[in-house]
Amino acid sequence: MPELRKDLVTREWVILAKERAKRPCDFLAKGPRSQAQPVPEQDPKCPFCPGNEALTPPEILAYRPDHSLPNAPGWQVRVVSNKFAALDHRGEPTRSEVGIYDVMEGVGAHEVVIESPEHHLSLGQMESSQVEKVIRAYMERYDALRKDPRLRYILIFQNHGEVAGSSLTHSHSQIVATPVIPQKVWAKIKGVEQYREYREKCPYCDILEYELAARERTICENDSFAAYAPYASRSPFEARIIPRSHQPCFITMGPKEVREFAEILREVLGRLYVSLQDPPYNFTLLNIPCSPNRVYDFHWHLEITPRLTTPAGFEMGTSIYINVTPPEDAARYLREASCPSPSG
Amino acid sequence: MPELRKDLVTREWVILAKERAKRPCDFLAKGPRSQAQPVPEQDPKCPFCPGNEALTPPEILAYRPDHSLPNAPGWQVRVVSNKFAALDHRGEPTRSEVGIYDVMEGVGAHEVVIESPEHHLSLGQMESSQVEKVIRAYMERYDALRKDPRLRYILIFQNHGEVAGSSLTHSHSQIVATPVIPQKVWAKIKGVEQYREYREKCPYCDILEYELAARERTICENDSFAAYAPYASRSPFEARIIPRSHQPCFITMGPKEVREFAEILREVLGRLYVSLQDPPYNFTLLNIPCSPNRVYDFHWHLEITPRLTTPAGFEMGTSIYINVTPPEDAARYLREASCPSPSG
Repeated sequence: MPELRKDLVTREWVILAKERAKRPCDFLAKGPRSQAQPVPEQDPKCPFCPGNEALTPPEILAYRPDHSLPNAPGWQVRVVSNKFAALDHRGEPTRSEVGIYDVMEGVGAHEVVIESPEHHLSLGQMESSQVEKVIRAYMERYDALRKDPRLRYILIFQNHGEVAGSSLTHSHSQIVATPVIPQKVWAKIKGVEQYREYREKCPYCDILEYELAARERTICENDSFAAYAPYASRSPFEARIIPRSHQPCFITMGPKEVREFAEILREVLGRLYVSLQDPPYNFTLLNIPCSPNRVYDFHWHLEITPRLTTPAGFEMGTSIYINVTPPEDAARYLREASCPSPSG
Repeated sequence: MPELRKDLVTREWVILAKERAKRPCDFLAKGPRSQAQPVPEQDPKCPFCPGNEALTPPEILAYRPDHSLPNAPGWQVRVVSNKFAALDHRGEPTRSEVGIYDVMEGVGAHEVVIESPEHHLSLGQMESSQVEKVIRAYMERYDALRKDPRLRYILIFQNHGEVAGSSLTHSHSQIVATPVIPQKVWAKIKGVEQYREYREKCPYCDILEYELAARERTICENDSFAAYAPYASRSPFEARIIPRSHQPCFITMGPKEVREFAEILREVLGRLYVSLQDPPYNFTLLNIPCSPNRVYDFHWHLEITPRLTTPAGFEMGTSIYINVTPPEDAARYLREASCPSPSG
């Protein structure tokens, strides 16, 4: 019998179709991904490779030796505006009406974080110290953008692999800041608020406590963070990384937490890389909205969604996902997987 | 400057990235789909082709001549249980708790509507009279399922093409009935309710009136229905078919409406087929929840979503979609496209 599981925060149900269950190796059926065509260490045509800095908009931020020139090789992490930005950083987010509809100028930010000078390494294969630099760049850009009074929400995310919507191989993540608070973010904020009203606790704190005691869905952990497969996982091998301490935004991390966040992110992505042979995935880093006037409660976290199945009409019409891999199986598989030693 | 447009019912924003705008022919870049490999009229291996009835579970409903035997050739439309059902029609939807989580037995229905005995025809290429039979089968099965007190919502949908999640070429749609009301359905019901409280009108009636006057986003229409590209379209060439009269459920259609619904559905899908060369798409038929105890207000409609772009991390984290084709352009293109003459 299949099972319906409810997400504690969003209240979305998920159908866990055990009868359709697949083993991890079934997801490899289409053949190994990364091994199919070895990726070179540098690609002369890649706009994110050192030497091609002129192919991107000028850098907004870069970690590079003191003596090196901006927009020239030598950098370790580089942040630039997205050449095909979905939102424009100029102008005011003026709202107006078009007949019965609401419309707003598409003001915001759309930046690209080039995570490493090395063309062939994904985040799960890099040295932890390199991932730490990426996290520092996220924090620095987040901090700058949240001070812009036109912006209401900042999402940091990564698309890895073509199936996951990435058009460039060279590992990069993106930062988009919007002049509105997205409905999906509202739903989570409201979920936290209502759970707290009812149980006088944060649902994420509750989940963390429960998962660390149950040990059925945990993947790995360290002093400051835990990674687990959510009870109502929408897709096979979904994983969540969450800080042990209740904080609404990742920006408050201290040096130890930054290091440990980098370590656990690298570890979870590395285990996915090895055990599912470099699957396509998206990750999203979820924080509170930016708001000078109102304080929201939230427990920040990062969600990793491998793209191993195709959401279709049923998911579109209901937002109920059909998941063929129990998160308990996924977590066990990832726990038992080896983590690649960094090739950086 | 990009534009943010707000959906009147769900309040979800959409980013219309005009600077990234694509012309319709850009979506054909990957090469024509249907022409690439001509589909045969019959496929001896296809479980949905006449003669292969034994390869599916026994039929629940079939339109066939009086003298013909069940589960044998001769049918025009055939409904069977999904062989790999996501929900089980047996048992009770018992709810229980697993630690802090909610879980429910996966009780429901999962049926497949085989739309035609002909292997190679998609809904947009069939005779209207054949599409009408498909709609009648939807209505008959919907009516049977809504009487089952265990079920709360019934979604009828179609996945067309591999990219849209379809694993079989032979044209078919699916019916899934769930023992819960999906959150996404709640959001629309609530959107209608709140709009009505504020403006004393149904938002869909308002939209219909506005679109039929503005004529910027209309695709085609007949006595009972109109088809248009929604103002806040989430993806290129999104289309909505909606009855002119305010009805919460498609089940109340009279014979003329059924005929005209078949005609307009065939026409919109046919125009998509011709102008975008058989694009992958999903459609969902959205009605009120099944509820013996409570009356909901809704204005039923059908949504068609071509799968021409890949939603990625940004859409996952925010549910704000980035759309590169203004619905005004999409509607004009579809209006000007020819509609294929039926090849049935």
